[in-house]
Amino acid sequence: MYSFKNDYSEGAHPNILKALMETNLEQQEGYGEDKYSKLAKEAIKAKIKSKGEIHFVSGGTQANLIVISSALKPYQSVISAETGHINIHETGAVEATGHKINTIKSENGKLTVDKIKEIVEFHVDEHMVKPKMVYISNTTEVGTVYKKRELEEIYAYCQNNGLYLFLDGARLGSALLSKENDLTLEDLGKLTDVFYIGGTKNGALIGEAIVINNQELMEDFRFYIKQRGALLAKGRLLGIQFLELFKDDLYFRLAEHANLMAEKLKEGIEKRGFRFLTPPVSNQIFPILPNNLIERLERKFAFYTWCKIDDDFSAIRLVTSWATTEEGVKAFLEEIS
Amino acid sequence: MYSFKNDYSEGAHPNILKALMETNLEQQEGYGEDKYSKLAKEAIKAKIKSKGEIHFVSGGTQANLIVISSALKPYQSVISAETGHINIHETGAVEATGHKINTIKSENGKLTVDKIKEIVEFHVDEHMVKPKMVYISNTTEVGTVYKKRELEEIYAYCQNNGLYLFLDGARLGSALLSKENDLTLEDLGKLTDVFYIGGTKNGALIGEAIVINNQELMEDFRFYIKQRGALLAKGRLLGIQFLELFKDDLYFRLAEHANLMAEKLKEGIEKRGFRFLTPPVSNQIFPILPNNLIERLERKFAFYTWCKIDDDFSAIRLVTSWATTEEGVKAFLEEIS
Amino acid sequence: MYSFKNDYSEGAHPNILKALMETNLEQQEGYGEDKYSKLAKEAIKAKIKSKGEIHFVSGGTQANLIVISSALKPYQSVISAETGHINIHETGAVEATGHKINTIKSENGKLTVDKIKEIVEFHVDEHMVKPKMVYISNTTEVGTVYKKRELEEIYAYCQNNGLYLFLDGARLGSALLSKENDLTLEDLGKLTDVFYIGGTKNGALIGEAIVINNQELMEDFRFYIKQRGALLAKGRLLGIQFLELFKDDLYFRLAEHANLMAEKLKEGIEKRGFRFLTPPVSNQIFPILPNNLIERLERKFAFYTWCKIDDDFSAIRLVTSWATTEEGVKAFLEEIS
Amino acid sequence: MYSFKNDYSEGAHPNILKALMETNLEQQEGYGEDKYSKLAKEAIKAKIKSKGEIHFVSGGTQANLIVISSALKPYQSVISAETGHINIHETGAVEATGHKINTIKSENGKLTVDKIKEIVEFHVDEHMVKPKMVYISNTTEVGTVYKKRELEEIYAYCQNNGLYLFLDGARLGSALLSKENDLTLEDLGKLTDVFYIGGTKNGALIGEAIVINNQELMEDFRFYIKQRGALLAKGRLLGIQFLELFKDDLYFRLAEHANLMAEKLKEGIEKRGFRFLTPPVSNQIFPILPNNLIERLERKFAFYTWCKIDDDFSAIRLVTSWATTEEGVKAFLEEIS
Repeated sequence: MYSFKNDYSEGAHPNILKALMETNLEQQEGYGEDKYSKLAKEAIKAKIKSKGEIHFVSGGTQANLIVISSALKPYQSVISAETGHINIHETGAVEATGHKINTIKSENGKLTVDKIKEIVEFHVDEHMVKPKMVYISNTTEVGTVYKKRELEEIYAYCQNNGLYLFLDGARLGSALLSKENDLTLEDLGKLTDVFYIGGTKNGALIGEAIVINNQELMEDFRFYIKQRGALLAKGRLLGIQFLELFKDDLYFRLAEHANLMAEKLKEGIEKRGFRFLTPPVSNQIFPILPNNLIERLERKFAFYTWCKIDDDFSAIRLVTSWATTEEGVKAFLEEIS
Repeated sequence: MYSFKNDYSEGAHPNILKALMETNLEQQEGYGEDKYSKLAKEAIKAKIKSKGEIHFVSGGTQANLIVISSALKPYQSVISAETGHINIHETGAVEATGHKINTIKSENGKLTVDKIKEIVEFHVDEHMVKPKMVYISNTTEVGTVYKKRELEEIYAYCQNNGLYLFLDGARLGSALLSKENDLTLEDLGKLTDVFYIGGTKNGALIGEAIVINNQELMEDFRFYIKQRGALLAKGRLLGIQFLELFKDDLYFRLAEHANLMAEKLKEGIEKRGFRFLTPPVSNQIFPILPNNLIERLERKFAFYTWCKIDDDFSAIRLVTSWATTEEGVKAFLEEIS
Repeated sequence: MYSFKNDYSEGAHPNILKALMETNLEQQEGYGEDKYSKLAKEAIKAKIKSKGEIHFVSGGTQANLIVISSALKPYQSVISAETGHINIHETGAVEATGHKINTIKSENGKLTVDKIKEIVEFHVDEHMVKPKMVYISNTTEVGTVYKKRELEEIYAYCQNNGLYLFLDGARLGSALLSKENDLTLEDLGKLTDVFYIGGTKNGALIGEAIVINNQELMEDFRFYIKQRGALLAKGRLLGIQFLELFKDDLYFRLAEHANLMAEKLKEGIEKRGFRFLTPPVSNQIFPILPNNLIERLERKFAFYTWCKIDDDFSAIRLVTSWATTEEGVKAFLEEIS
Repeated sequence: MYSFKNDYSEGAHPNILKALMETNLEQQEGYGEDKYSKLAKEAIKAKIKSKGEIHFVSGGTQANLIVISSALKPYQSVISAETGHINIHETGAVEATGHKINTIKSENGKLTVDKIKEIVEFHVDEHMVKPKMVYISNTTEVGTVYKKRELEEIYAYCQNNGLYLFLDGARLGSALLSKENDLTLEDLGKLTDVFYIGGTKNGALIGEAIVINNQELMEDFRFYIKQRGALLAKGRLLGIQFLELFKDDLYFRLAEHANLMAEKLKEGIEKRGFRFLTPPVSNQIFPILPNNLIERLERKFAFYTWCKIDDDFSAIRLVTSWATTEEGVKAFLEEIS
């Protein structure tokens, strides 16, 4: 059974495993002070043309809870779309660090200045939390992407209102390689206070690279990483992987492949006359299919049924990755023809 | 410069990398539901002959904070030696989950029933925390090991007094292969409520296997792992490693090698007439050397100076691992002769 | 300027001050172990005909955060209306104890089984929090009250689905004396797992009486109170007040007066042809008035403007209490005639 | 049975009850914005000659947990004597806000620069918490007091090392009126970053006045108070009490009486040839008495037996207050003669 369930079904890109092998018996410093972590940070900084600070952690929930809890004072909150990963799929990890999430209803998973403003202006005194950070995901949890102008507007509002902007880039590769995209990594260094570059969902075994652009958020950051159990003794595991991912733009080529596979799925599905729940522009697409077709597909392919549309139709989620094969895509499209 | 700084300077045992390579392109379920995690759990259970529940996480601090915060109610505390890793070297990770650590002074890093009892009997009412868990490390942070009888006494006291016993096994391999040792993995399944088998410091890239023996501590444990950001999307990375470590007793053979290297260092050092801060029985030994010798050694070897003994002498810490070479040991001993 | 801003503008009912005076120089045990706290608990239990456990704390936010954080495990959440006091007006106090609030949109401030069920059924695995408690307020934050049948339905659902039901009774007096009401204190002992009887907003200087009906929630409750800084050294202050409030049904007579004053306001306002935002059935009413009238009223009376209705009208909030005078009410009604 | 168990056995000084009565029916703003709270703050500021900010809360544990958790970042810790109230008698309230307490062994309950320095210098990197605050009590938990020079030395060290100094003044009245004392309230405004003036143990029903001297600690302080459930709706209760306590130096006169009663006890006990565990200089004294005498005393007086000295002797704790009577003291001394 071929799986379109997620973008972490396979292991790592072979270059990464090769690099792990080749460096395996070198003695390196622990806790991210190794040569490879340093080189990987330099490689990323060069790409962003940033003076930011970079830290590697194992996964997205870890990145989110560390960034958010290090930036906020106990009474401050973070604003997120209702669909935001931190709000739904992290078992209350942010609240477990003591902070409220102020949620915004959003059809396409994206925030807008108007909606953020409404939340900010509602919170007026010490009987309420004080919103201090805006959390957005790119791609969003429903596969959409932010345009440069949208991000500029949000960041301008944040800066004028004393809010930090944090971009969750668990699927940043797919976002930046989307046909819809007009943002660069360099832009993210200028249009956010902090963001992360997701490795786990784009070719790494584990690993997210947190990029802190705002100096206020840099102080003693390694203390937060350690306190949350996220400072790996063998930090080389993260450094080596990101060094490979940023060699010869491997990171971008992997995302490009993932998006191409999704694009092929999308075209084939469209050709058969089906619509999509949200614009299919990244490596997550949500076609709306007849329930009996879904049942048939489930016998041969693994994927999530996302939501009911009406009595006869449901939306499913198909996810592609750097490892998705043309054969897999072809087999799926044949099944629905 | 050859390093005796720690047991995580090198990567992973080659078998592990080989297994990662061979399984790399298989599609597996995420979040620890993959085939390899299941097989690894079975392999460990077989070894322990236990009905316990096993969960893999990335590192020791993570294991400690998850186990402790999942077992305790908000007003309950954990008892530890002052030297305990949770008390000194985890940046307040346990307190960050809301719990006090009641500390006990201990020269050799070990707890005894008498000292535990003193703490328990001091806490009498609702103005004080209520001790509910005892935390011990084996090997301890100063390289000593628990005898079976000591563990039996502590566990009997814990059971009679409603306390959980948690054993931190970050260096459990070295403990079980120590010449002093008379415990087995099977014993730990019967003489603790929960413990973990350290992988990071014994041949894995990352990974600790938490073994829950007491059914009270099993409920919804995956929720705790996820909430703390410790549920890896590619959980296979942990499963594959532990499966290799428990194939043909690799885990024990690696620890045996580490201990053997430490034993050789110890013998050579003793031969030159030097003493040790604590009994040198595991892969961490603490020789007391003249300061001028230490200075000379530092030019060729990496290690920590542990503490001052008097104006002329200090104790240093030497750590060996599965990857320590005979050549490294030999070179060190030549330098001090 | 006469105030209808809230029900805590004045001090305490004179009986309470008198009792404080008369008992002032008696030596009593500290921390709620005094004679008066014991008598007050007996008096309340007699009224509820309950085997519950009673604890006094200073205020509503304190009661809410202690009850909720003592009942939930770290990954469990509490369900509340969006308008719930814990969700909006407690500066993230519940999240500060580590727990997520799952919110439900509700026009009248009340929850229904259908809406609770939707939340419960949405949370299916360890990537999400696990709802474990339902929080309701009576009266609600918008002045409405629960009918016995509504409460029975909610509690039945909670019991069938392993959820605790917690009723915030900051304004319980007004609820039980509402014309709409068909509940008794005795009912609350049977139809909730835990609730509290608000003193601060019904004649006490400070004080809420937490009543725990469900034995699971009783264990070591004083530890939670102490840990949150809520165990008063001079606990007599709380005991003496509740003893007075439950002497000769003073508590109910005070609420009756508050409701009567609100009823008079309501009748006068209705007579002048104005409508209300929510049914005016308790000591908080929300008339919808022309903006120019509101401006005029603000010169002579203190109250909150609640929300904009359209360009010409807004809803204001008028709150009455045990201390509201007929003269105040009369003056207000004259002003709008 | 006459009680020397504590200084909160009686209610409030009559002036306070009188003021509560006289102002009872005035309508005042809620949440500490009332006229009396403002006047009380001015009165205290005038006494301290300070530009500090003042906030009232209900009790000592509340004051401690709010001050400490508002001042520290998640990875920062507070240094305290092992005997410190926050370390022993607050059910882990500080840890429950996420912070470690670094403890110092101290025979007389006081800290010194040497001991503080040892802790600070031990904490060197991100694997350990970072001490950021020093907590001292005056009087200490064993009845001793700080001299001005001791406080100056500690504060100078704190300022030179980036540490906040917080003085717990639950029994500040007794400290300032001790014969040993050479400090003034004005000094405390200059020699600490934040301290509090205890009301509960010196004539108030409840109430502690937190005085923040360091501007860094002032920001949004009311958010912290509210979030912890410590912002009383009828904040007037705290304001009125402190206004009375600072009228005509009532606060100091009450402490003077308490100390005088302790002095008489001390003299009588000394005359009978008994010694003390710690210097008897405040309203808590710890005579060492024969066990059979203690048993006899227990039949007529309430007090705590503090600790065993040897097989025949134990130390007991006697506490006096503003309400302790000459008769009580006399009766006690007669009993031991």
